[in-house]
Amino acid sequence: MSKHSVSPEIDRLISLLAKLPGLGPRSARRAALALLKKPEALMKPLALAMGDAAENISTCSTCGNVDASNPCNICATPTRDNTTICVVQDVSDLWAMERAGAFRGQYHVLGGTLSALDGVRPEDLNIANLIRRAGEGRVAEVILAMNATVDGQTTAHYITDHLETTGVKVSRLAHGVPVGGELDYLDDGTITAAMKSRRPF
Amino acid sequence: MSKHSVSPEIDRLISLLAKLPGLGPRSARRAALALLKKPEALMKPLALAMGDAAENISTCSTCGNVDASNPCNICATPTRDNTTICVVQDVSDLWAMERAGAFRGQYHVLGGTLSALDGVRPEDLNIANLIRRAGEGRVAEVILAMNATVDGQTTAHYITDHLETTGVKVSRLAHGVPVGGELDYLDDGTITAAMKSRRPF
Repeated sequence: MSKHSVSPEIDRLISLLAKLPGLGPRSARRAALALLKKPEALMKPLALAMGDAAENISTCSTCGNVDASNPCNICATPTRDNTTICVVQDVSDLWAMERAGAFRGQYHVLGGTLSALDGVRPEDLNIANLIRRAGEGRVAEVILAMNATVDGQTTAHYITDHLETTGVKVSRLAHGVPVGGELDYLDDGTITAAMKSRRPF
Repeated sequence: MSKHSVSPEIDRLISLLAKLPGLGPRSARRAALALLKKPEALMKPLALAMGDAAENISTCSTCGNVDASNPCNICATPTRDNTTICVVQDVSDLWAMERAGAFRGQYHVLGGTLSALDGVRPEDLNIANLIRRAGEGRVAEVILAMNATVDGQTTAHYITDHLETTGVKVSRLAHGVPVGGELDYLDDGTITAAMKSRRPF
């Protein structure tokens, strides 16, 4: 951006917006313009919402979720089944599980996966806390819901190994044909997994 | 998003982010998480930058540019050629012209194009101001730099008609092969235009 023509306030707004995932320099400029065209209806409310979230949202020290309270709303809800812990890579996966509404137990957010390539070691993730929670006696089952990627499955294996001493049941999400999916568009690994785990009709 | 699991602060942040162009519900969630993970390094500075911009940035009453001062920095720079006005659809086009650095005159931002489909009439755009500026005697040339779309060219024709009485020279950007462009990927209209406007080598 030419230094002569754009005010430093706008330049700063664009460069900060460009740091958001999914926004490149071009879409950051578009977003900045959209904000500048609606200062009262969009820019001020968004600035307030961000300031508000920055002040009030923290990471749950039990499960790693982000929420306005600590322990988070999920950990603190007494009606949720606290004998089952679903382990997810990231908060976005927890949100996806909650949107699906298929699980009413507790969560544990790892904050990523083990990765030799990116130098992510077990102590960089929220794993020690998980082993501790699983060993507290209340927990009967740990469901590993990591992504079905190499790093996700490596992490699942590592956690399974370290949960052995606690004696809790460890399960993982089923592999298979996505609901609504077409065989022709699926990779070989998924079809093989779906065939292996076939169920009586 | 399930009402039970996500705090209202986060829900509000996500729904406001989803109003930005280029961000859908999914990428808004990703952006919100990225912000929540960096409250000090990204969320607070962005909130401040937005609040700052909302307070300080306004539309230049001369040309329609957005800037911290009114008249804007471009209108107020005495070293810029004030005998030439480049007419653009939007502020983003002004920014694109400035990045290219190919023009050192004044601008005029229309704020859109005439559109029968979207019900945009001449009085909805910053056109009357342009006719007035062009008629002030100082201006020698108006360069129409609207997009090469049907609506852009309709607008260019409308403006040309209404500038006739002022006697200023009206020009438009050249059509032709984009620099770095390959003929095989160009549409017929562009190739025809480039052929018609061919230049001695």
